[in-house]
Amino acid sequence: MASKMWGGRFQGGADTLALQYGASLPFDRRLTIYELTASTAHVQMLGEQGILEEREVAEIVDALGRLGVEYADGRFPKEPAEDIHTAVENYLTKLIGPVAGKLHTARSRNDQAATDLHLYVLDYGTRIGHTIRDLQGALVELAEQHVDTIMPGFTHLQPAQPVSLAHHLLAYFWMMERDAGRLHDCLNRSAQCPLGAAALAGTSFPIDRQAVSDELGFDAPYPNSLDAVSDRDFAVELVSFASICMAHLSRLCEEMIIWSSPQFGFMEIADAYATGSSIMPQKKNPDLCELIRGKTGRVYGDLQGLLTMLKGTPLAYNKDFQEDKEAVFDAVDTLLPALTLMESMLRTATWKPERMREAAELGFPTATDVADHLASRGLPFREAHEIVGKLVRLCIERNCALSEISATELRGFSGYFDADYTAPSVDESLAARTSYGGAAPSAVQAQLEEAKAIVKAAEEAATEPDES
Amino acid sequence: MASKMWGGRFQGGADTLALQYGASLPFDRRLTIYELTASTAHVQMLGEQGILEEREVAEIVDALGRLGVEYADGRFPKEPAEDIHTAVENYLTKLIGPVAGKLHTARSRNDQAATDLHLYVLDYGTRIGHTIRDLQGALVELAEQHVDTIMPGFTHLQPAQPVSLAHHLLAYFWMMERDAGRLHDCLNRSAQCPLGAAALAGTSFPIDRQAVSDELGFDAPYPNSLDAVSDRDFAVELVSFASICMAHLSRLCEEMIIWSSPQFGFMEIADAYATGSSIMPQKKNPDLCELIRGKTGRVYGDLQGLLTMLKGTPLAYNKDFQEDKEAVFDAVDTLLPALTLMESMLRTATWKPERMREAAELGFPTATDVADHLASRGLPFREAHEIVGKLVRLCIERNCALSEISATELRGFSGYFDADYTAPSVDESLAARTSYGGAAPSAVQAQLEEAKAIVKAAEEAATEPDES
Amino acid sequence: MASKMWGGRFQGGADTLALQYGASLPFDRRLTIYELTASTAHVQMLGEQGILEEREVAEIVDALGRLGVEYADGRFPKEPAEDIHTAVENYLTKLIGPVAGKLHTARSRNDQAATDLHLYVLDYGTRIGHTIRDLQGALVELAEQHVDTIMPGFTHLQPAQPVSLAHHLLAYFWMMERDAGRLHDCLNRSAQCPLGAAALAGTSFPIDRQAVSDELGFDAPYPNSLDAVSDRDFAVELVSFASICMAHLSRLCEEMIIWSSPQFGFMEIADAYATGSSIMPQKKNPDLCELIRGKTGRVYGDLQGLLTMLKGTPLAYNKDFQEDKEAVFDAVDTLLPALTLMESMLRTATWKPERMREAAELGFPTATDVADHLASRGLPFREAHEIVGKLVRLCIERNCALSEISATELRGFSGYFDADYTAPSVDESLAARTSYGGAAPSAVQAQLEEAKAIVKAAEEAATEPDES
Amino acid sequence: MASKMWGGRFQGGADTLALQYGASLPFDRRLTIYELTASTAHVQMLGEQGILEEREVAEIVDALGRLGVEYADGRFPKEPAEDIHTAVENYLTKLIGPVAGKLHTARSRNDQAATDLHLYVLDYGTRIGHTIRDLQGALVELAEQHVDTIMPGFTHLQPAQPVSLAHHLLAYFWMMERDAGRLHDCLNRSAQCPLGAAALAGTSFPIDRQAVSDELGFDAPYPNSLDAVSDRDFAVELVSFASICMAHLSRLCEEMIIWSSPQFGFMEIADAYATGSSIMPQKKNPDLCELIRGKTGRVYGDLQGLLTMLKGTPLAYNKDFQEDKEAVFDAVDTLLPALTLMESMLRTATWKPERMREAAELGFPTATDVADHLASRGLPFREAHEIVGKLVRLCIERNCALSEISATELRGFSGYFDADYTAPSVDESLAARTSYGGAAPSAVQAQLEEAKAIVKAAEEAATEPDES
Repeated sequence: MASKMWGGRFQGGADTLALQYGASLPFDRRLTIYELTASTAHVQMLGEQGILEEREVAEIVDALGRLGVEYADGRFPKEPAEDIHTAVENYLTKLIGPVAGKLHTARSRNDQAATDLHLYVLDYGTRIGHTIRDLQGALVELAEQHVDTIMPGFTHLQPAQPVSLAHHLLAYFWMMERDAGRLHDCLNRSAQCPLGAAALAGTSFPIDRQAVSDELGFDAPYPNSLDAVSDRDFAVELVSFASICMAHLSRLCEEMIIWSSPQFGFMEIADAYATGSSIMPQKKNPDLCELIRGKTGRVYGDLQGLLTMLKGTPLAYNKDFQEDKEAVFDAVDTLLPALTLMESMLRTATWKPERMREAAELGFPTATDVADHLASRGLPFREAHEIVGKLVRLCIERNCALSEISATELRGFSGYFDADYTAPSVDESLAARTSYGGAAPSAVQAQLEEAKAIVKAAEEAATEPDES
Repeated sequence: MASKMWGGRFQGGADTLALQYGASLPFDRRLTIYELTASTAHVQMLGEQGILEEREVAEIVDALGRLGVEYADGRFPKEPAEDIHTAVENYLTKLIGPVAGKLHTARSRNDQAATDLHLYVLDYGTRIGHTIRDLQGALVELAEQHVDTIMPGFTHLQPAQPVSLAHHLLAYFWMMERDAGRLHDCLNRSAQCPLGAAALAGTSFPIDRQAVSDELGFDAPYPNSLDAVSDRDFAVELVSFASICMAHLSRLCEEMIIWSSPQFGFMEIADAYATGSSIMPQKKNPDLCELIRGKTGRVYGDLQGLLTMLKGTPLAYNKDFQEDKEAVFDAVDTLLPALTLMESMLRTATWKPERMREAAELGFPTATDVADHLASRGLPFREAHEIVGKLVRLCIERNCALSEISATELRGFSGYFDADYTAPSVDESLAARTSYGGAAPSAVQAQLEEAKAIVKAAEEAATEPDES
Repeated sequence: MASKMWGGRFQGGADTLALQYGASLPFDRRLTIYELTASTAHVQMLGEQGILEEREVAEIVDALGRLGVEYADGRFPKEPAEDIHTAVENYLTKLIGPVAGKLHTARSRNDQAATDLHLYVLDYGTRIGHTIRDLQGALVELAEQHVDTIMPGFTHLQPAQPVSLAHHLLAYFWMMERDAGRLHDCLNRSAQCPLGAAALAGTSFPIDRQAVSDELGFDAPYPNSLDAVSDRDFAVELVSFASICMAHLSRLCEEMIIWSSPQFGFMEIADAYATGSSIMPQKKNPDLCELIRGKTGRVYGDLQGLLTMLKGTPLAYNKDFQEDKEAVFDAVDTLLPALTLMESMLRTATWKPERMREAAELGFPTATDVADHLASRGLPFREAHEIVGKLVRLCIERNCALSEISATELRGFSGYFDADYTAPSVDESLAARTSYGGAAPSAVQAQLEEAKAIVKAAEEAATEPDES
Repeated sequence: MASKMWGGRFQGGADTLALQYGASLPFDRRLTIYELTASTAHVQMLGEQGILEEREVAEIVDALGRLGVEYADGRFPKEPAEDIHTAVENYLTKLIGPVAGKLHTARSRNDQAATDLHLYVLDYGTRIGHTIRDLQGALVELAEQHVDTIMPGFTHLQPAQPVSLAHHLLAYFWMMERDAGRLHDCLNRSAQCPLGAAALAGTSFPIDRQAVSDELGFDAPYPNSLDAVSDRDFAVELVSFASICMAHLSRLCEEMIIWSSPQFGFMEIADAYATGSSIMPQKKNPDLCELIRGKTGRVYGDLQGLLTMLKGTPLAYNKDFQEDKEAVFDAVDTLLPALTLMESMLRTATWKPERMREAAELGFPTATDVADHLASRGLPFREAHEIVGKLVRLCIERNCALSEISATELRGFSGYFDADYTAPSVDESLAARTSYGGAAPSAVQAQLEEAKAIVKAAEEAATEPDES
């Protein structure tokens, strides 16, 4: 029994190291379930088109089913093979003899491999989509509890203006919303079926590509057979989406790491998501946040690897393309649990509003309000800015807050100050930022409603029977 | 007059090298036109909301208009400044005095910078979209002329099966179609307006963000002010699109380089797009194809730079984000002319059908047809493959073509061969691949109609008044 | 017995997914042998310094030895653990009880993990060095056989001037020579021992770091404990070396792919290193060359991942650093077999001098010689270039070679031509390029002697007892 | 006068956009000085070898000198040209007529371009080396002042054990030391001269490559002409060095950003190196640190761009290689001022030892000392760790420090505690870490001596006449 799918024109055996270096079974075994689904759809179509006899189709479909059971039980694949396609064919041949060879009518590993990876991307892409929705849900729930939790808004990691924890968390909600959009677009574009493109040029067998495409849940077959076997855009686009999504998680992780330091003390990660040290008994480290931050580079590397691999490859299939799978798997394996873990960490963390408020008082965060007051009284903003800058310098020298400068003293700085004006408290400052999308509790409440409507719509879409 | 937008609380001057290293004017001057547009919309809204007086608004708008003229004439900016925002304000102040400072009411450089780059991305993204359509048009026109131009279809740069030049070129049409889709999605997602987010938390002035967003042609304002000033997804997504698009161009370039070698001789680049050597008088080099292929790495680098920059940055604005602009500019400057040049090269190249046909005969490209014949007669494909592999080995030894093996001799290899069967010609082989998306002229003709319909729809959309 | 190395201050168990996401045992088990070596050296030093009793040391060393045997037999590790350090300690504790806990005196996982990876890099770096030398040996041997095998030298994949296959292959010899140099520098710089830096600040136990460093074959201990546990330069530098080396292999692979096409036909890969198609029986594909070319992107991705991970990490250890290992392993696993396989492919390929010579005649490769002739007779080179350019255009129109233009006709183009001058043959052209490093057989012979001397010196160094 | 270096065989003019896209003069004009130096050396050698007449050489050398003056005055280049090589030749031709064309005897733009970039790398590489030494000098001087400035040593941004500011800063000294080593190795490897390789195959003119190499300060000519014109390793290696060096700077920047936050307050950047906000008058932002951190991604992108460009390029020269220059320039332009600015920021910052000491008390940083005490009394470290972990939990509940637990109470936790033992102060803890490379002031003093010796040796080497 030939264990390779080719060899008639070759003399002598293959080099062992070469076989091992080129074999994809160690990683494409993960595609078994898609290989079986696609093979079943293909062979049934061959039967319906009269290319194979019904009896042959039945025999092959049955054997594919039995293989599926063995795979589920962890008993497949047991023997080495070049790739999952060869492993399946070898298994079938053992089971039902030469008729197994008829499965490969009107197809090639080129279109098979592309089909399998498409199915994987659509399946795991959908799972990632649900997980993003879960994380958004957690952000919204947490935000609802913290509309009035005042904290410093930072730019350049320096206190800028007061915001609320809700407002801060919702910023991540919208990042995730864009991620969800990018993923959705990517999956839509990936819903083209390569099967039937055969090696590169289509086939002379009277196959029905539309039927196979429908059966497998694709939108349509690829309209060009060369493109069908040589397109890896869908892999790049998924990993590109994953890279941006990891970038977002890395930003939140960075904040959680800084917030967990005793100097900030804004939050504490739950014990279940922190780790200790082998030598320092007092330690509780936000390891998981660091790991997600660190793994961001890894997904970027996957993206760069894919793009570099694709560069300058002539049509149609080249062996370089075998490198598509591990990069996609690695990106999915990195991102999917990271999303789940972020949700869990957020839900279980202890938040410390009192430390946040304390911090919100530092660094003259109401200086802009004072300048705005002057501007609203007719002083050009640029001059107002200059005056308040000098006020701040005074406060630094006196080691006092802006609100401790009396109305009279303020009037000494500028006649534009209202007679009884003093700098607002951080609560007053926050409450005033009512512009659309602003940090004021009233504006955040409105923002929250928008966010909740999105989560609800997504939930409803997820529970409806899938039409795509 | 202070030439910086801040300084009240600072003592002593800034370090010269630090100023120079941090200054963005050398590159963000390219955003002047967007800065003026956005400033005009902002100040008009301030007037309509009663925040500034009509007289002040008129004065500022007029000054902005005059600056626009100076910019168009190349007379702005002439003086050094920290960034384009400062340069504009300095100019206005010179022109109309302190009232210029009122323009900065209820906004910050954080939301301004983000708005300018959004406008650039939407503008240049749209231009790139049109150029992609032009290139698709050239591909379709060329394909129409070459439906019957037979050439070898390659996998692994080895002859695989015959295809037509039309089929080959259309593969690139579909790549570009996905690029157009990705670009469209990216621009849709980028059509959010940051202006009015101010520094990070919104403002207490009663601004109308929706009005500004509408005026500037955005879909809507960002719903979260922190996100508005710290989001750089739109830049990453554009450069990610550009990277995949460059990958596609690099593939076509690689093919054109190989095809232009005297060994292949499938085509010749027009003199206008080729260059010579300073030392070797006989040389005509496909430099431009190599340059586009080489510049692919550069755009990948821009993408990697952006992603790395974004990683681990806390909310909201950080100076790291200033690095967004040059990467986006560089990617656009690289991609946009590359698309135009590719169109020109395709339109002006000389194609050599006779060399392609010659090549199409090499390497036993009809072997699959022979195996398919056996399979269609009931032999399992895997066995048919093995038999034809041996036939090919025989032909290599005899240095003859498959079609030169007589029907009788074929029957010696397998009783499944029809009595009068001999291997088909490459024309017969090509004509037979009629499956959807296949290489047969009839199938390619259908594919061409699909492609033409897409081009036509895009042209119609482009000439309609823009609603987006 | 706790299976974690920490936990006294924690309440409640760890989250399962978090544990799994953070666990490094699935990949750092590859470091077992280095962990054992380093632990043995550490504990022996603890004994010699009187920190542990000799009896304790003996017990631990014995247990480490038994673990080494179990590992060699594939029986370790069997149980899940956070990392290899924990797995080893758990095993020891099972074997010898609480005294095992003494092994962790005066060290931390921070310095242990760094030490293990250093040892891996030094070990596998050395192996890669030997493999590079083997590949250089193959290049030299092949070059010796092909000093007179004329082939076209290409620039821009267009024929430029004749060279020999030997000269072409030796270009790769020198690339590999630079790779060997880079690797050597990298390993020298990596030969610093982190052990004894403990968590980050050193220890109050009277340890002898120099002794441990010597015992493990390092040059010296790190002079700063913070740097010792947070330095990942050695990993980046190794993967950076690997990236450049893969770039070199990718270049040779690209050439072998092009040379294997029937259009070029300069060589044929041995059957043992080529593969076929599941559908096209005639195919013999240079898959392995494509795979190495494709995997180049993967190693670049590893490099990018490492660099991105490192960016912006504060001192000292961060969990991000755990991401160092897989990138290094992946780069080594990709590069090491690629070098071996390239050597094998070169040694077993069939070279086709007649096809190369045929190709060397195409494309007017002696045009520079003709221009040089004019220049040597006093015509400024720039004018000579212009004249020969016109000659070439004439030849293209006539479809003839340069050497077919008679001396008389040449004189019509320029009076600078010698009266009896006609364009040289490619052999004459090649023989004339005798400048140092030039393509003439005589110059290549000299180059070959340089290369052979280097290979010989490297072989002698490898067989000498290692002093480094 | 032809303004291109080729064209004899071409018909019709070049496309304007193509010319513009392919032109390198906008960026390679930076290489003018190297172009002139190399041309002078080349033409003088041509004279000495009798290839040109002395009179011709004198005329050309004189013209090159005049061009050098015009360049220094900013009057060259004024006219558009394909590249710097063409611009120089055009200028010379205008000045001295056709004899200028003799300069191009026995060379090509391929070896010229490579030579120019080599000279740039060697020149700017050396400057970077000096700047690294300056930065190391600042680190050492600062460290000398802060051997006793206690601060928390962090792992995972959580307090771990006390260290000194000196120890922390010296960690960066050693990173820079490795950078200096990498740069040195890179420059050594780059000191090979391509000139004389001509287009790709050497030349038949009796040139003396060794003489040109010596004159230009290289170690030796490249031994293989194909390699000489197609090697871009030296560019990749320089940018790879720059990437790691930027990674180091990004780490220090991240720390300075965190340390500058009011929550940490360990330091304050000098006003000269900080910036304000256009809207928030109170702000003082560590922009420069963020910019350097952000620009790290840009240099990584340059590296990725170069590596990707190089991948899969056949021998010898390809136009792709033109992309080498901008990446190298950008990396140098980013790194060189960053090093200088970092030195300035360090030298001018205000350090706040009292805030550091305060922070050093937080987070039970002496817990390891307590565990070490138990271990030194014979308790296995693993058990000691467990006991102290429980002690810490107690302290958290009581909100007290470890040193506040009485000796008696400690004995209740373990009988291994000495009868009068209480937890040490952070000063005692620090003073105890005397192992080589440890944080104790005594160990840091020794480390400082090592560092000072290195700085001194580097200074001496820099002032000696250069022999390399």
